[in-house]
Amino acid sequence: MGTGELTVNPARTLAELKELRALTGDENGAQRVAWTETWARARAWMRAKLADLPAEVFTDEAGNQWATLRGKSERELLIGGHIDSVPNGGWLDGCLNLVAGLEVLRRLAAQGTPPVTVRLVDWADEEGARFGRSVFGSSAASGYFNPEVQATLVDRDGITLPEAVGAFGIDLRTAHLASRQLAKAAAYLELHIEQGPVLERMGLPLGVVLGTFGVERNRIIWRGQAAHAGSTPMDRRKDALAGAAKLALYIREIAREVGDGAVCTSGGVVCSPGIVTSVVETAEQLLDQRHLDGEKLARMLAMAQEASRRFAEEEQISVEWHPLWRIAPIPFHPELMDLCDKAIRETCGTSHRLPSGPLHDAAEVCRAGVPTVMLFVQSLRGISHNKIEDTLEEHIALSVRALDRLADKTIAWIEGHI
Amino acid sequence: MGTGELTVNPARTLAELKELRALTGDENGAQRVAWTETWARARAWMRAKLADLPAEVFTDEAGNQWATLRGKSERELLIGGHIDSVPNGGWLDGCLNLVAGLEVLRRLAAQGTPPVTVRLVDWADEEGARFGRSVFGSSAASGYFNPEVQATLVDRDGITLPEAVGAFGIDLRTAHLASRQLAKAAAYLELHIEQGPVLERMGLPLGVVLGTFGVERNRIIWRGQAAHAGSTPMDRRKDALAGAAKLALYIREIAREVGDGAVCTSGGVVCSPGIVTSVVETAEQLLDQRHLDGEKLARMLAMAQEASRRFAEEEQISVEWHPLWRIAPIPFHPELMDLCDKAIRETCGTSHRLPSGPLHDAAEVCRAGVPTVMLFVQSLRGISHNKIEDTLEEHIALSVRALDRLADKTIAWIEGHI
Repeated sequence: MGTGELTVNPARTLAELKELRALTGDENGAQRVAWTETWARARAWMRAKLADLPAEVFTDEAGNQWATLRGKSERELLIGGHIDSVPNGGWLDGCLNLVAGLEVLRRLAAQGTPPVTVRLVDWADEEGARFGRSVFGSSAASGYFNPEVQATLVDRDGITLPEAVGAFGIDLRTAHLASRQLAKAAAYLELHIEQGPVLERMGLPLGVVLGTFGVERNRIIWRGQAAHAGSTPMDRRKDALAGAAKLALYIREIAREVGDGAVCTSGGVVCSPGIVTSVVETAEQLLDQRHLDGEKLARMLAMAQEASRRFAEEEQISVEWHPLWRIAPIPFHPELMDLCDKAIRETCGTSHRLPSGPLHDAAEVCRAGVPTVMLFVQSLRGISHNKIEDTLEEHIALSVRALDRLADKTIAWIEGHI
Repeated sequence: MGTGELTVNPARTLAELKELRALTGDENGAQRVAWTETWARARAWMRAKLADLPAEVFTDEAGNQWATLRGKSERELLIGGHIDSVPNGGWLDGCLNLVAGLEVLRRLAAQGTPPVTVRLVDWADEEGARFGRSVFGSSAASGYFNPEVQATLVDRDGITLPEAVGAFGIDLRTAHLASRQLAKAAAYLELHIEQGPVLERMGLPLGVVLGTFGVERNRIIWRGQAAHAGSTPMDRRKDALAGAAKLALYIREIAREVGDGAVCTSGGVVCSPGIVTSVVETAEQLLDQRHLDGEKLARMLAMAQEASRRFAEEEQISVEWHPLWRIAPIPFHPELMDLCDKAIRETCGTSHRLPSGPLHDAAEVCRAGVPTVMLFVQSLRGISHNKIEDTLEEHIALSVRALDRLADKTIAWIEGHI
């Protein structure tokens, strides 16, 4: 047993989160966008914190920063998060996991050599804020990484992703070698703010995450005919906007009918010519549909497609579907969910299981075959990716304690004691 | 009686329209945008045509080009059109009126001094294509011209309207003096392509225009709340797009219920943030409503506003209305409409009365108090402001003959013989 503190100190976590905010945020929020100087500053800050621990710090081929606390066994418990943020982001999204994980590492190190090896990983570029594609580092590790697609990405200033990551010593051709870091992983834990309103509405500080939603993301193009707003009788119009409007309303019926947390979002419609004196010729509509159940998700997509064809016929316009992106639902590990439930109940009395709408690095690790679970802490107003993102300090403290308990339970589970 | 031809020659009109197209169009269509070199070339071409007539040609303070054939009386019959086009415009919109009017002038001149003075006017910048505000010259003549607003207009290249018109010798401070040109006007005639599908659908070449629609044009801003597409349950959303979608569909009910040619158009919706992963926070919607009856138009606007408030309440979002532009309906002169009906029936057997959705210079002249009527010729597919704008050559020929008959009838009417 070591000489340090034997329990986590959530007050220190809070102080460190504020220290990081002061170092890497401004009046508009967090500015830790991956592959920038501010991000590098955040990582250097974390390395300085880790320097006080008997941990080896190392950056893998995809830019993920690992801190390893060697245990009696080579089998590994991973605790992961991401220090990167969106531009003008919140102070907790991503880094809470790391700073709380640091506190767990301190507690474990203080108790001497842990029974299993424990590693804290800061995944590179979870947000994808600069190049538009998220989970860079964790997907490189999971094997769901496409270097050819990544090579085509360009930021707003015309800098390519290979240039930007190259400045950090990353080569897309070898990024996949990060997968070797998961070779001995026996479990993966991630604490994250909920980024939604469910726990707040239920009055609960913490929840167990069931998994991440499957997503069907499509661009739908409605094509009608431009026509003069004054001279074209109503019954002669082929109004592309009418198709988009009907679908924007109908997706709510789909979510209602399928239920079980189904969500459908039309994030926008772009109209062309888009002028006040013309019927809309082309309407490009974005549609995002999510569900935790793959079959239900498939039904949601089918319902939307079928309805779109009906609307197109009604409006005498055409409709085309262009897939943007899709991912299957990723359910987390049932036994780890049970452990997480217990850890939460021991910490604050009541737990709740809920799906995650947003994607997380945890989903990548999970689909790489590592038993995974996530822990959510309540978000105030359900808002994230914004400087007003916030969580009650008492809830942050509870989340650190729950993660710590979960780590202990998971170590016992890895050892076969549970 | 003169020595020239005693009837109009529509074949010459067709040939001249094609000549003008070759001189001022390209593979993308007509390029006679007002206050450009190509527009000046079109006007010079017209002056050269007029030079063969005993007509005085003169440009007024607002840039309108007048050709005056002095008659026995100082009372004037005006025939008007516009040689300017939108960029990539059609070959007939605006110039058909002038080239056909030229033919009528030739016929009248050939018969000697007409009983009343006959003037052909080429209104400056009917389209407003470059500075976004239409009927420049005719509104200067009608008195519905606001030089202060005009002075603020800027084109895409940053050139101000005062600079552009200044290059043509026009000073905004004196443009209103063009109103003196209407002092002796006893009647105004304008032939135009329909720019809509009504006559084509009825299988008729020509129609009498009842007047121009009143227009209520508004920008509607719906404000909801941005929220994550994955983590925000459906019943917690404040989706600005839902309000816009409901209104885009409901305006069709309004048009149906009010009837009598009512049209409502939502020309576009701009969504913000407009990304696939967020509920729409702000939707800016364009709405254009038109009717020939002022009371019905007011009812259409009230229905839309009332519905928008209802939709905002249903969706827990807010709605604001920002007027963009409005004009009252402008009904044409009943006796001139009767004469036009007769002229059409004598030319092709059947006539039809229809409102004009688009605005025209004729509406400006009408609201200046000059008895006015317009004559429409069928548009193929109802398309204009596009290089594929077209009209059957036989219909163009009929329109020249009908305009010529209408001119004769109107001269007799001015003289008090009808």
